[in-house]
Amino acid sequence: MYKFLRCSLAVISLLSVAASLNAQAPKKLTQYVNPFIGTGAVKGSLSGNNYPGATVPFGMVQLSPDTRDEPEWDAASGYDHNDNFIAGFSHTHLSGTGAPDLFDILFMPYTGDEKTRAGDAKQPGSRYGSRFSHANESARAGYYQVRLDDHDINAELTATAHAGFHRYTFPRNSSAKVVIDLNHSLKKPNFGCQVIAARFNIVNDHAIEGFRVITGWAKLRKVYFYAEFNKTIKSNDLVDGGTQYFNQQLLNGTDLRAILDFDASDGIPVLAKIGLSTVSCENAKLNLDAEIPAWDFDRVVAQADALWENELEKINVEGSEKQKQIFYTALYHTFIQPNNYADVNGDYTAIDYTVHHAKDGFYSTFSLWDTYRAAHPLYTLVQPERSAGFVNSMISQYDAYGYLPIWQLWGQENYCMIGNHAIPVVVDAVLKGIPGIDINKAYETVKSSSTTDHPGSPFKAWEKYHYMPENVQSQSVSLTLEMAYDDWCVAQLAKKLNKTADYEHFMQRSQYFRNLYDTQSGFFRAKDSDGKWASPFNPLQYGGNGGNPYTEGNAWQYYWYIPQDVKGLIGLTGGDTKFTAKLDTFFTLNSKPGEVNGNASGFIGQYAHGNEPSHHITYLYNYAGQPWKTQYYVAKIMSELYNTSSSGYAGNEDCGQMSAWYVFSAMGFYPVNPASGVYVIGSPAMQKSVISLSSGKRFTILASHRSAENIYIQSAKLNGKPYTHTYITQSDITNGGTLELVMGPKPNKSWGVNASDRP
Amino acid sequence: MYKFLRCSLAVISLLSVAASLNAQAPKKLTQYVNPFIGTGAVKGSLSGNNYPGATVPFGMVQLSPDTRDEPEWDAASGYDHNDNFIAGFSHTHLSGTGAPDLFDILFMPYTGDEKTRAGDAKQPGSRYGSRFSHANESARAGYYQVRLDDHDINAELTATAHAGFHRYTFPRNSSAKVVIDLNHSLKKPNFGCQVIAARFNIVNDHAIEGFRVITGWAKLRKVYFYAEFNKTIKSNDLVDGGTQYFNQQLLNGTDLRAILDFDASDGIPVLAKIGLSTVSCENAKLNLDAEIPAWDFDRVVAQADALWENELEKINVEGSEKQKQIFYTALYHTFIQPNNYADVNGDYTAIDYTVHHAKDGFYSTFSLWDTYRAAHPLYTLVQPERSAGFVNSMISQYDAYGYLPIWQLWGQENYCMIGNHAIPVVVDAVLKGIPGIDINKAYETVKSSSTTDHPGSPFKAWEKYHYMPENVQSQSVSLTLEMAYDDWCVAQLAKKLNKTADYEHFMQRSQYFRNLYDTQSGFFRAKDSDGKWASPFNPLQYGGNGGNPYTEGNAWQYYWYIPQDVKGLIGLTGGDTKFTAKLDTFFTLNSKPGEVNGNASGFIGQYAHGNEPSHHITYLYNYAGQPWKTQYYVAKIMSELYNTSSSGYAGNEDCGQMSAWYVFSAMGFYPVNPASGVYVIGSPAMQKSVISLSSGKRFTILASHRSAENIYIQSAKLNGKPYTHTYITQSDITNGGTLELVMGPKPNKSWGVNASDRP
Repeated sequence: MYKFLRCSLAVISLLSVAASLNAQAPKKLTQYVNPFIGTGAVKGSLSGNNYPGATVPFGMVQLSPDTRDEPEWDAASGYDHNDNFIAGFSHTHLSGTGAPDLFDILFMPYTGDEKTRAGDAKQPGSRYGSRFSHANESARAGYYQVRLDDHDINAELTATAHAGFHRYTFPRNSSAKVVIDLNHSLKKPNFGCQVIAARFNIVNDHAIEGFRVITGWAKLRKVYFYAEFNKTIKSNDLVDGGTQYFNQQLLNGTDLRAILDFDASDGIPVLAKIGLSTVSCENAKLNLDAEIPAWDFDRVVAQADALWENELEKINVEGSEKQKQIFYTALYHTFIQPNNYADVNGDYTAIDYTVHHAKDGFYSTFSLWDTYRAAHPLYTLVQPERSAGFVNSMISQYDAYGYLPIWQLWGQENYCMIGNHAIPVVVDAVLKGIPGIDINKAYETVKSSSTTDHPGSPFKAWEKYHYMPENVQSQSVSLTLEMAYDDWCVAQLAKKLNKTADYEHFMQRSQYFRNLYDTQSGFFRAKDSDGKWASPFNPLQYGGNGGNPYTEGNAWQYYWYIPQDVKGLIGLTGGDTKFTAKLDTFFTLNSKPGEVNGNASGFIGQYAHGNEPSHHITYLYNYAGQPWKTQYYVAKIMSELYNTSSSGYAGNEDCGQMSAWYVFSAMGFYPVNPASGVYVIGSPAMQKSVISLSSGKRFTILASHRSAENIYIQSAKLNGKPYTHTYITQSDITNGGTLELVMGPKPNKSWGVNASDRP
Repeated sequence: MYKFLRCSLAVISLLSVAASLNAQAPKKLTQYVNPFIGTGAVKGSLSGNNYPGATVPFGMVQLSPDTRDEPEWDAASGYDHNDNFIAGFSHTHLSGTGAPDLFDILFMPYTGDEKTRAGDAKQPGSRYGSRFSHANESARAGYYQVRLDDHDINAELTATAHAGFHRYTFPRNSSAKVVIDLNHSLKKPNFGCQVIAARFNIVNDHAIEGFRVITGWAKLRKVYFYAEFNKTIKSNDLVDGGTQYFNQQLLNGTDLRAILDFDASDGIPVLAKIGLSTVSCENAKLNLDAEIPAWDFDRVVAQADALWENELEKINVEGSEKQKQIFYTALYHTFIQPNNYADVNGDYTAIDYTVHHAKDGFYSTFSLWDTYRAAHPLYTLVQPERSAGFVNSMISQYDAYGYLPIWQLWGQENYCMIGNHAIPVVVDAVLKGIPGIDINKAYETVKSSSTTDHPGSPFKAWEKYHYMPENVQSQSVSLTLEMAYDDWCVAQLAKKLNKTADYEHFMQRSQYFRNLYDTQSGFFRAKDSDGKWASPFNPLQYGGNGGNPYTEGNAWQYYWYIPQDVKGLIGLTGGDTKFTAKLDTFFTLNSKPGEVNGNASGFIGQYAHGNEPSHHITYLYNYAGQPWKTQYYVAKIMSELYNTSSSGYAGNEDCGQMSAWYVFSAMGFYPVNPASGVYVIGSPAMQKSVISLSSGKRFTILASHRSAENIYIQSAKLNGKPYTHTYITQSDITNGGTLELVMGPKPNKSWGVNASDRP
């Protein structure tokens, strides 16, 4: 077991109980979850921007330590494994994003008078943080523990969907204080972050409620809380900036901290449970009462574990202990979000700043440019009920806002990244027959979202020029390619609904990528609105998020983004041989210009596994008759670019996408076109994977003789019959059955190479 | 009639109709309302910061022209009579405040292509403003009209409580456009003003809805609207900053304008009606449908006029035409606010950013440091039902926020000015027996608001030092004096409820002013927490709003602020003679230091009628046996510091306080201690004033022989019996009856001078 999982005494005893109860039972899948994976870059390496704190599947609350007073880009999840300081435990976090936000309602236990401690004590209660070491830290799904060295406090955290639960074991002979900080946030004024209003109200000698209204990466969020303690609040010190209000019932302001004093001399830990809501303190209390009615911390820990176990059991894999740790942590990371922000009674604050009601939950945190690729297809497969919830939540944004989400955070649109990749998600879910989605309404949303101009999506220009001119909209090459894909998705739903004219129109649009193909350079290249190629042109030249034709990448990386028509791309390239040769160059061309976008990482040649535009590219060899090269590169990425360290991802985990790539690839296939219902076969890392579908059926992937060397498919059988296709379909999986792949150390260059075998 | 009331053709014809229908009827009181009074400083003079636009009594909507693109301090109401440019007509304004805010949902009609016009046309639709002249402008209660010279458009405005109604008469042979600007505001980034989110949604070819969320002097406001037109929107151009979206249904952004195109060739005016809500577009539509169901502009004008007439008839006065114009415009200004922000269904967004429900309305815009002095006592007298609404709205802030309002704007606390002067308002209303207020709850709110520390009100220090030390809280002298008064009010309610201990405690606190009395200088003077006098000391030295012991004034002006114990102040001063001598000096000492606070204006010696701390001082002579001096100065102020010009007030009108001073004083009395039920007699400007009470009773004040010279009371009778008291009480008024004052050109120095006659 990885050192980060070293357990505290309390945890060991709990695990022992569980172990003794299940002496003969197989190891629980949650025991393979290592929340520290991806939490910090091992020197010179990369991080996933993950956090190690406690959360339940798709829950609103992510209760996790923040190792910075004001997290920035480089610790967007609040935690950096390289830090040795904890500012406190806040209740909301983003998993693996490139930008920071949330960090709501920070709690921190401490001892002594903060003024007498070392450090800058200008403001009372502002220096309650503590040093810690990983030797005294542990985490598992739904549970986090750390010893706060400066205070000699053992802090434990667990969570339910809408509430956090803290257990602080103070030393007996010291004061026992808990600070609640309502001004803790990403570094201000980045993203215009500021607290507009905040409030504390001490409800009684065991409870405090309040809220903050804050701007940031999410334009405006209201976060209400209701917190209860198992012990009497002996006294309090409410602080606004530098002004203290002792033993007062309430405080309104913007820079608020509440310092609560408890008696720990009886050795009984201080327990705190906190409900959250986007609507009101009343709803926060409702959430808390519904989810944590009692003071049984261990029971909530066990409950969280059971919830995770239940989700993780949807895929059972056989592989090495290390592989299973990578796999189940990846699966855990994919199931952290999207998050249900609706209260237990269905209320939530919507994008129009009014309270809406969603009886089946309102999900947000849609990092769609990332997650439409593999995370959402994974949800469609093993989380069909929630997939309907995701889609219906997106549709509710459409109703209130006019188009589907681009990047939706806490119900707010932040327009991060390009394209309208809710479209493939909606279309995929509908075409796969996910129940609970109104197909006609779904079509209305994808069509409107493809025709209503909005920031980053000037469709009138798209219709006028048949490509995106760089002088009309920057990131134009990436946008042209990705818009064309979204259009293909719209067309598929139009077809399904027999809307022939729409189908033809959107199919035409889906081919607009051709208008940026520069035969001279052999790349997709920017044009202006006069049709003039952008010059000079260097296919290695990187773009960022604006001011350049390529989004977080270069012309090499974007060359491959025609998932809706790989055959067409092969044609443009000059046929199979030229296509595979270009792929070979791509994976081996190491030359990089001085400036590489920070999001590009995890390189194999020009391939950058650390960012999403590359994610499908290894699988493209299958389309041109060289599946063994797909197998080679997929196996290489799984073994070299994923591991169990805090550097376990080759770049931002991006709300489940980096993980979903692994989950699919480790089982042996990947949704190159995420809305096609086709999965392209790679090289399974697992000896066996069993997908348990909600229908009760199972689909099993066997990889016989799979080992570190045996990465190549020698032969295959589907449900006992020889199988030469290098892909499987959605119905192959949903019908249940077994795909058996026989693996060996050398490529079988005759398997899956015929044109009829290709995806 | 003052030149500002010069009528357009349309108005004249409407007035003619009214006149012909009521040929023998007395002139309607609304015809004395001149909304241009106080709207702009005549050169070298002063302004009230009033606006001339259309509103109904206590309504949410104030539809008025803004003569600046981004109003600042000097045009806080949006309009300056010295300007000759109109940026547009926005739906919400503040009447007479010293700081700017609101200006929501600006509409502006224009013709032609804005790009071809002169001026900065960098952003489409951003230069739709027009020049205008007062010759082509008119206004009366509930109606405003102006000719937009640059476009040859006649624009007319009227309003209901929650909606605005526009009538734009375009020239026949031009394009006819209406721009809606959601980014129009006070000058950004003053008060941190920024639009956080905004939205347009074209509902159908006759309707558009949307909202904006904006920060400013009010921390955060959500303003939703629903607008309908009588004509088809032929085409539209939605604009976000510099980006245009032609003929699109919707737009989300922050710098939004909608340019709507109409056909005016039929000569029929374009009508637009707009409902507002703090809750949702649905509620905005609900408000609009309830209040303006038809396209009958003139009917809504007549309705607004009738509403005003109904309110103005609560006081009938006889005086010169000019006096009546001043009087009824003042009464009109007092009835503009507080404003009912609850929707017609009772919903409103409360101070905790949740939606609350108030069946009897939720009133806000409480400029309490100003209005508790005379405006609220006036409401208590002639608006008892609404007074209950005001008090219950304040109590609802207490419930959600922990203390009563200080300065409440659109339901948001902005902590402007000092003290907690909701307390006298609540106490006054309760003690006067206003029905519909829970007395025990009221006591809870005033006591809590006097003991819970909050910004500007450190009560723990108050209790510890028995004065406010300047090093603990700036503006300490003003705060000590005003807090002591608020405490006296709390004590009165405690007494009423037989809470003896509380009564004694708060009565003690009400005497803390004595602890800042410096016998050496003979002034109230700042001390620090060690009890050391602040030095050097100059009683002429001005303070502003922080960093100095005096609030917008000096030691001379604050000397007189012991309304709860004028007798005590006379004692401190050394008796009647020294007191009246000090008053004489006060009214004649012209020396001013170089730096005078901008709010101090309308000087008579050190007396500054342009700001509230002076407002009661003329009446203090009555307390020391020289009522004729009160009579002299009151008459002088009424004749010299009020007029019918745009400079009609001697300083900011301050949400009705400058007006309420006139209304009371012109009738002949003033509430020196606004929560005492005692009105001190001055010198009536009106020959006759009749107050019609909600009980059906009437109280009449006759000022026989009153003329410009006859300003002195010779004798008095109350209900036919000789009357020598220089005050009357609440019950004298509410019992009904007549106070007859016989006026003459010379003081009668024997009337009302005995100790037993004094207030």
